Amino acid sequence: MSVADKIKISIDNSSWIRKMFEEGLRRKEKYGADNVFDFSIGNPNLEPPARFKEVLVDLLKDPQPGNHGYMPNAGFENTRQALAEYLNRTNRPQFTAEEIIMTPGASAGCNVVFKTILNPGDEVIIPAPYFFEYNPWIENHQGVPRIVSTRPDFQLDCEAISEAITEATRAVLINSPNNPSGKVYTEAEIAELAAVLRHHGEKLGRPIYIVSDEPYRKIVYDGISVPSIFDAYDESLVISSFSKALSLPGERIGYVAVNPNLTDKDMMLQGLVLSIRVLGYTCAPALMQRAVAQLLDESVDVSFYKKNRDMLVEGLLSYGYDARVPEGAFYLFPRTPIEDDVAFVKALQEENILTVPGKGFAAPGHFRISYCVSPKTVEGALPGFERVINKFRT
Amino acid sequence: MSVADKIKISIDNSSWIRKMFEEGLRRKEKYGADNVFDFSIGNPNLEPPARFKEVLVDLLKDPQPGNHGYMPNAGFENTRQALAEYLNRTNRPQFTAEEIIMTPGASAGCNVVFKTILNPGDEVIIPAPYFFEYNPWIENHQGVPRIVSTRPDFQLDCEAISEAITEATRAVLINSPNNPSGKVYTEAEIAELAAVLRHHGEKLGRPIYIVSDEPYRKIVYDGISVPSIFDAYDESLVISSFSKALSLPGERIGYVAVNPNLTDKDMMLQGLVLSIRVLGYTCAPALMQRAVAQLLDESVDVSFYKKNRDMLVEGLLSYGYDARVPEGAFYLFPRTPIEDDVAFVKALQEENILTVPGKGFAAPGHFRISYCVSPKTVEGALPGFERVINKFRT
Repeated sequence: MSVADKIKISIDNSSWIRKMFEEGLRRKEKYGADNVFDFSIGNPNLEPPARFKEVLVDLLKDPQPGNHGYMPNAGFENTRQALAEYLNRTNRPQFTAEEIIMTPGASAGCNVVFKTILNPGDEVIIPAPYFFEYNPWIENHQGVPRIVSTRPDFQLDCEAISEAITEATRAVLINSPNNPSGKVYTEAEIAELAAVLRHHGEKLGRPIYIVSDEPYRKIVYDGISVPSIFDAYDESLVISSFSKALSLPGERIGYVAVNPNLTDKDMMLQGLVLSIRVLGYTCAPALMQRAVAQLLDESVDVSFYKKNRDMLVEGLLSYGYDARVPEGAFYLFPRTPIEDDVAFVKALQEENILTVPGKGFAAPGHFRISYCVSPKTVEGALPGFERVINKFRT
Repeated sequence: MSVADKIKISIDNSSWIRKMFEEGLRRKEKYGADNVFDFSIGNPNLEPPARFKEVLVDLLKDPQPGNHGYMPNAGFENTRQALAEYLNRTNRPQFTAEEIIMTPGASAGCNVVFKTILNPGDEVIIPAPYFFEYNPWIENHQGVPRIVSTRPDFQLDCEAISEAITEATRAVLINSPNNPSGKVYTEAEIAELAAVLRHHGEKLGRPIYIVSDEPYRKIVYDGISVPSIFDAYDESLVISSFSKALSLPGERIGYVAVNPNLTDKDMMLQGLVLSIRVLGYTCAPALMQRAVAQLLDESVDVSFYKKNRDMLVEGLLSYGYDARVPEGAFYLFPRTPIEDDVAFVKALQEENILTVPGKGFAAPGHFRISYCVSPKTVEGALPGFERVINKFRT
């Protein structure tokens, strides 16, 4: 066999996802792409803000020597400085450039953090539902994901988290706004989580980190804002990305910010920088680092996603679906009207509607609708959503 | 402690490199950057070819929707197709887009390959001297580097490689043109290596791969060209990068090419694509993928490096240094006139000349001069090189 055993298993395990994906492609070919309603992946339909291209063109017009060369693994000093100042506007702890580490996207950020903090066998608690790639990103570094369900409304279940903590617990990984639920954890939920971790940290004689993956921080609705993890808990790291805020997920640019008050912070910073190198990331792409430094206050037009969300929520609730209105991100995560979420997703596929079963997010009995799509896709799919739920009505 | 035990050890181990680096910075501050001759790192002094910027500006002027969005993890189809056609001009096996996987640089390419092929404990044979980052890139995936010395002129020692092969051997990792020696392995050396691996592969009942890391393929001198690994050996993967050929190491763009004749190739390709995802690379940066597709025949002006090489070789040989003339890359790897290479490198540092001890490349008794620098740096350093060797002359 040409590949390692674990890789073979992963290929086999992901074959049902691939089969669904291939069935989607087959349908697009058969019925035409416009007649297939693809809500299956989180690839933003929006183009980056106009200012993004202006900034890039300006950077190319007036090139600084070394613009495309190596820089320190942590990134260009002026980009890190700009981000520190940006974070200082909305967080109580005050950052310097040193506490900001540029990474090629949040996925790299997660791997860099886990490589740095996990000894083999160390556990990372993840509230479910959660983004399924977290598993390999922890297992890459011999860590063990410990999945803890949230409450039925996707609220953090801090009691369950407290019970799941062992000698091996190194961190709690949260994702807010959440993929797939769209839930934004409230200040009260975060405060409760922080209190639980402080309590266990004291007992263990070492901190349990909150690792907060926040690529959707700017994608929020109805005037809600995402509470600061840094304000709530000293032993915290935030992973961020410009993929969703600026609609450039293919460019791989993000960062890790380390709480200025974190215990033994200097060692953590050295470890993160080392991990960027040893994991083969080397650095975040140079030109994009220069660009985002000038785009920190920019954002895609969130009202575009909000319209999709409202249209979907209104439609689905009126047809009898059970769905919580998401405060952020661009995912809706309704319950499936039958227990078997894979069967339900297949029934939607018969209507040329592509979604993902909740099983893939450790929350069977749900399905994910990714609504970062054209409004026409939402409009076109609504009748199909109605027909399918009616089919299962008894 | 905030970091994992292994990370702490790596931080401690790399502290001597950091100390040297900091000493260099201190000297630059004290004596002025122009009076410190920094040959310590491989950050090309040359800017990318003019055409690179033209292509980028054109791509931004005429944006295609999704230009900055996600694409399949393996990369944009048209970039992969362009690379396949490019490779078909100089290799006998004929490629399709499918056999080309875009990666964020060669460092990512190495990690993607090792993640895909290594079971825990599997061994990778590396001829020394070699680029020191290969160790973590293999160990990240629970592999074990097996270092085998080359002959005194840096020729592959295929007998020693043959003796080092065990049940656990999964691959031989070569790097040609070589960092740090500048050696280009000849067709005869590659043919001998291929014969050895075919022989052992038959005995083991499975292939032993050649993984060829070739970021310096275009940086060669005196009309030499780098022989095709694909022509010589079916069970081969080549890792490449545009970092050196186009002088844009900060942009992280490269690829893995899989021999079209590799056994069980489809599984290998699926494994590589999966590894890009599970390692958190996600994809190679989108805009750079579009750009390099139009720049496959471009290269930095290699004569710039050649002048530096010639000036250095002429000077150093005339002072009595023992150095082999490198055929490629931009490194010179002379013997140190005293056994202790760290002590010798420190003596050069006293002359404000920054180099790296051979110890870091598993070749003590040598030192590496990275000559991708301004010709003024070479000129300015020559008298210091002469003074230091004279100091140690008995």
